[in-house]
Amino acid sequence: MASAEKVNVAQKLSLFDEHWSPKVVGELNGQHIKLVKLLGEFVWHHHDDEDELFLVVEGRFRMEFRDREVWLEEGEFIVVPRGVEHRPVAEEEACVLLFEPASTLNTGNVKGEMTVAELDRI
Amino acid sequence: MASAEKVNVAQKLSLFDEHWSPKVVGELNGQHIKLVKLLGEFVWHHHDDEDELFLVVEGRFRMEFRDREVWLEEGEFIVVPRGVEHRPVAEEEACVLLFEPASTLNTGNVKGEMTVAELDRI
Repeated sequence: MASAEKVNVAQKLSLFDEHWSPKVVGELNGQHIKLVKLLGEFVWHHHDDEDELFLVVEGRFRMEFRDREVWLEEGEFIVVPRGVEHRPVAEEEACVLLFEPASTLNTGNVKGEMTVAELDRI
Repeated sequence: MASAEKVNVAQKLSLFDEHWSPKVVGELNGQHIKLVKLLGEFVWHHHDDEDELFLVVEGRFRMEFRDREVWLEEGEFIVVPRGVEHRPVAEEEACVLLFEPASTLNTGNVKGEMTVAELDRI
């Protein structure tokens, strides 16, 4: 589903409150554009076949890797390459835009209570 | 080239002044993240095989289609589906983030003086 309707990111963020539950807001070339709200610590995981982009829309969070961490502020993005273990941590709520293949599961190789199997589109 | 270094969008925008000359600032899953500054009217064109996302980072512009136009403000994006003729127009400078396949030529099916064949990475 590609569409020529515009999307207002702030308006879409106003439609949900849950944390760690990505919402699909666009799709192109087999990739999804998602919005997600972060709060607290996610689970350590990696994606075998998918690189994943995180762009901070509101707030800040840190991306933990096994050997270092990177703080991301509003207007900053990071690409986490496939195969690289990572864990996002947000001490206060952060709103993030994700760009990743439509096949991507939020917890990657780890299935658990934070896994979201059915994606909502908003 | 996927990387786990973060990118600050505003800092990257400070590195160039040209209009209609997209700069690659990230890559993942065969897709490019580009930044471009718009001013004036681009050329009518379409992309045969690529959907293209435009996210406004600063300013505003309008996307013209053959049958309508869509104004895009800061924090808004639009996906232009493959095959759909479009022309971006910016009456004042606008800064835009693009997501599109690494193969995408800026002027799509139309080759001319606005075509950028060699992409800069910044």
